[in-house]
Amino acid sequence: MFGPITRFDLHQSRIPRQWYNIQADLPRPLPPVLHPGTHQPVGPDDLAPLFPMALIGQEVSQERWIDVPDEVRECLKLWRPTPLFRAVRLEKALDTPAHIYFKYEGVSPSGSHKLNTAIAQAYYNKREGVTGLTTETGAGQWGTALSQACKFYGLECIVYMVKVSYQQKPYRRAIMQSFGSTVYASPTDNTEAGRSILAEDPDTTGSLGIAISEAVEVAAKSGGKYKYALGSVLNHVLLHQTVIGLEALEQMEMAGEYPDVVVGCTGGGSNFAGLVSPFLHWNLTRGKKTRFVAAEPAACPSLTRGTYRYDFGDTVGMTPLVKMHTLGSSFVPAPVHFGGLRYHGMASIICEMYDQGLIEAVALPQLEIFSGAMKFLQSEGIVPAPEPSHAVAAAIREALAAKEAGEKRVILFNLCGHGHFDMAAYDAYLAGNLNNYEYPQEKIEAALAKLPDIKDPTAAS
Amino acid sequence: MFGPITRFDLHQSRIPRQWYNIQADLPRPLPPVLHPGTHQPVGPDDLAPLFPMALIGQEVSQERWIDVPDEVRECLKLWRPTPLFRAVRLEKALDTPAHIYFKYEGVSPSGSHKLNTAIAQAYYNKREGVTGLTTETGAGQWGTALSQACKFYGLECIVYMVKVSYQQKPYRRAIMQSFGSTVYASPTDNTEAGRSILAEDPDTTGSLGIAISEAVEVAAKSGGKYKYALGSVLNHVLLHQTVIGLEALEQMEMAGEYPDVVVGCTGGGSNFAGLVSPFLHWNLTRGKKTRFVAAEPAACPSLTRGTYRYDFGDTVGMTPLVKMHTLGSSFVPAPVHFGGLRYHGMASIICEMYDQGLIEAVALPQLEIFSGAMKFLQSEGIVPAPEPSHAVAAAIREALAAKEAGEKRVILFNLCGHGHFDMAAYDAYLAGNLNNYEYPQEKIEAALAKLPDIKDPTAAS
Repeated sequence: MFGPITRFDLHQSRIPRQWYNIQADLPRPLPPVLHPGTHQPVGPDDLAPLFPMALIGQEVSQERWIDVPDEVRECLKLWRPTPLFRAVRLEKALDTPAHIYFKYEGVSPSGSHKLNTAIAQAYYNKREGVTGLTTETGAGQWGTALSQACKFYGLECIVYMVKVSYQQKPYRRAIMQSFGSTVYASPTDNTEAGRSILAEDPDTTGSLGIAISEAVEVAAKSGGKYKYALGSVLNHVLLHQTVIGLEALEQMEMAGEYPDVVVGCTGGGSNFAGLVSPFLHWNLTRGKKTRFVAAEPAACPSLTRGTYRYDFGDTVGMTPLVKMHTLGSSFVPAPVHFGGLRYHGMASIICEMYDQGLIEAVALPQLEIFSGAMKFLQSEGIVPAPEPSHAVAAAIREALAAKEAGEKRVILFNLCGHGHFDMAAYDAYLAGNLNNYEYPQEKIEAALAKLPDIKDPTAAS
Repeated sequence: MFGPITRFDLHQSRIPRQWYNIQADLPRPLPPVLHPGTHQPVGPDDLAPLFPMALIGQEVSQERWIDVPDEVRECLKLWRPTPLFRAVRLEKALDTPAHIYFKYEGVSPSGSHKLNTAIAQAYYNKREGVTGLTTETGAGQWGTALSQACKFYGLECIVYMVKVSYQQKPYRRAIMQSFGSTVYASPTDNTEAGRSILAEDPDTTGSLGIAISEAVEVAAKSGGKYKYALGSVLNHVLLHQTVIGLEALEQMEMAGEYPDVVVGCTGGGSNFAGLVSPFLHWNLTRGKKTRFVAAEPAACPSLTRGTYRYDFGDTVGMTPLVKMHTLGSSFVPAPVHFGGLRYHGMASIICEMYDQGLIEAVALPQLEIFSGAMKFLQSEGIVPAPEPSHAVAAAIREALAAKEAGEKRVILFNLCGHGHFDMAAYDAYLAGNLNNYEYPQEKIEAALAKLPDIKDPTAAS
C-alpha cells in the first residue's frame, strides 16, 4: 500500500576530503575578472580588501583537487553526508519508466546547501584574523547559513537584507538575529551606495544588487577588520558545493546506476555546480555522456535569455566586472515571483559550461514549478523550497520525456533545501495568486543597453 | 577554533523492529478508562467507532514487545534512524563537567517526532478499510504529520485547527492543505460541539479541547467511514514513539556512556515517553538508576500543579474519562504562551510513572526556556522548536547542577523538533514581548471544581 523508501546513506567518514575544482578540466579557461575602474584583469591585491588570501587562491586555482581542512570537515559532520533518495512514488505517480533520484540538502541545520560554503568561508576568514563578515541576503537562506557559520567560528556577521524581504520575512530576520547577526534593511543610509540609491528613490524596496553594493562597501572601507562573503556565483563558492556531487557519485554507485541526466536549479549557480561538476568531470575524463540541465525561472532567465558579456556583480558598479550571462545589473525582479532565484547574472563557471555546450538550460514558468512541487511533496513527503522546485519541475519534464520515448532513463536532481520557511509561496499558489509572469524582453534590452561595452583585454582579437 | 561534532548514526537496518510497551513493566497497572456516560470501564466496542481494532489492542496490550509492521518500518526509513549528538560546545559554553547528549527528531520531513505515530496510525486505519481520519491540531506539528501520513496511505484527512492558530499560522494551514487535507478553523458550525461552543461565545478563539470534541464527533457519527487520530496522550501513541528511546539506547552504547538523567518536554507526553520508556525499562529490570525529568511550561503545569483524578480528554465531555494529572478540561491557555504544550491533561502512562515516583517533573518559566534555546542554538547550530526548548532549559539546569556538585553526569534530552516554523516565538522573545506568566492557582481550582467527582469503580476501597 505504500511504495518502498529507497535511501542511500554514507557514513560520516565519507564526507569528501577534497573539493573538486572544475577549472582544472574546463576545455577553455574562464575569462578574466576585470577591475571596475581600469577594465584590466584583477590580481590578488585587488581582491584582498574583500576576501582572505586562501579564498582568493581558490578563486583562481587550476588544481583539480583542493583539500577540505579538517576543521571544516568536522563542522560538516553536523549534517553531512546528506541522503540520496530514489523517488519511487513520484515515478509511479508519473507512470514513467525513468528512475528519479534526488540528493537532499535540506537536512542541513540552515535548511539548505548554503551552509556548505558558509562554513568554509567563515573558517578561512577566521584563520586569517578577520573580525567579521559582511554579506547580503534576499530570500534569507544565505544570510541564515552565514550567521550560523560566523557564530560557530566566533566572527561578527553583518547582513544587508533586501528591504522587501526584511519586511515580508520577519522570521528570517529573527533567525539571523538569534545567531547574533546584525541585520539591516537595504538600502540603508550608512553606506554611500545606499544613500545614493535612496536619494534617487526613497521608497525603493531594494534588490540583491544594491545589498551587495552596501555589504562590499562596508568591508572595503573597514581596513581589513571586515571582509565580504558571497553565497553563490564565485568560483570558490561553487568549489565548496562540490561535496554534494562527490557524495552523490558514491551514492549512485551504491544504487548501482549512473545518471543519464542531472538537473539543478540556477540562481547564482552554486547548488547546480555543486552537484553537476563531479559528474561533468566524468564526462570530460571518463567518456560518460550525461546531460546536464540548468533550471531557471522564466521570471529571471539569465542563461536562456541573458547575453554573455561583461557586467558588474552589483547594481552600483563597485564589484569587479565578470563575463556572464546577464539580464543587466540594473535588473529588478518582479514582485509576483517567489523564491530566491532572482540574481541578474550567473556564475562564470556555469556560463562557460553553457557557452562551451557542456550543459543545457531551460526556463520554467512559475505555475509549472509549484504544480511540480505539489506532485513531489505529495509523493515523497518532503516539502521543497521554491528554488529547488525548479529542479523538481525540470526533472518531471525529463521523466515525462523518458515515458514518451519509452526509455528507462536515470535522472538525478538536487533538492537543495526544504520549504519550511517558504509556506507563504505555497499559500499564494493554493489561493491562486501566482501567475506565469515572464520577464519582458524590452526590459532586458533596456538594462543591457545601459552597460558599458567591455571586452576581455586578454582575448585574441 | 571550532569544537568537535560528535554524532552517532545508526544504519537503516537498525530502525527498531518492535515497539517497547511500558505497560508490561509498570509496577502498578494503569487505571481503567471510563465511559463518559456510565462511568464504567470502556471495552473495545466502546472505542471501535473512533479507532481501528489494531490500535485498540495496542491501547490495552500488556505485551512487552509489539512488532512494527514492515510497511511502517519502510516508511520510517524516510528519515530514521535519527541522529544522536553530544552537545560538546554547549557543555563548553556552560563550563560544566556534565556530558550532554541529545536525540534529534527534527530531521523528520514534518520537522518533529509526530510523524512516528502518524504513520503507524494511518497504516492501521488503512488496513482496516477506513476512508479517512479526523483530528485536531494546535501549533500544527501534529496536523502536518498526520496530513503527510494520510497522503502516503491514500486516506482523507480532516483537521480541526484551533481558530487562533488557524489565523496566526496560515503557513501551517498551507502545509496541511498542500498534502491534500481539509482544514477547518475550530470551533465550526458543522458539529454539535462547535455550535454549542459558538452559541455560548461567538468570538471564542478555540482550544485544543474544543477541537478534539469536533474531530471526535465527526468520526463517531460517520458510521465507520472516518476514524479519529490523536497525536499524543493515548497509550498506543506513546508506544509508537518508543523508536526514539530504542535507537537512543543503542546510540548511547556507541558513545560508550549511559545517561544519569534523561530529560524531555511534556505536553501530552508522547515525545517524553518515547525517549524515556526504554531507559526506564532498564531501571525496572536491570538495576539502572537513571533519573527522568519531565519539563513542562509554568503556563500549563499539569504534572506539577494539576490534580491526579478522572477528567475528560476534551472540553465538551465527549471523550472517555481518563485518570490524569489535569488542570481541568475547561482550561484555556494564556495567549502570551508560545509553543504547543498547552493541553490540560497528561498521558495516563506519564501520570502513573509520576505518581509511582518513577519520574520527576519541573515547571519552567518562558524566559528561561527561550534563553536556554538561544544558548543551545548558538552553540550547536540547530534551532529548537519552543516545545523541546523546555527540555533544553531543563537539561541546562541539570548540567549546571552537575557543575555545582563537581560531578561528571551524563545527561540525555530529546530535541523533538526544529523551530523553523516557530520563528514568530523567537521574534517575540528578541523583541522583549514574552513574559514569565504562570498559570494562576485560582483558575486551576475553579476548573477542577467544575469536574464531577468520579472514582475508579475497579479500585479496592
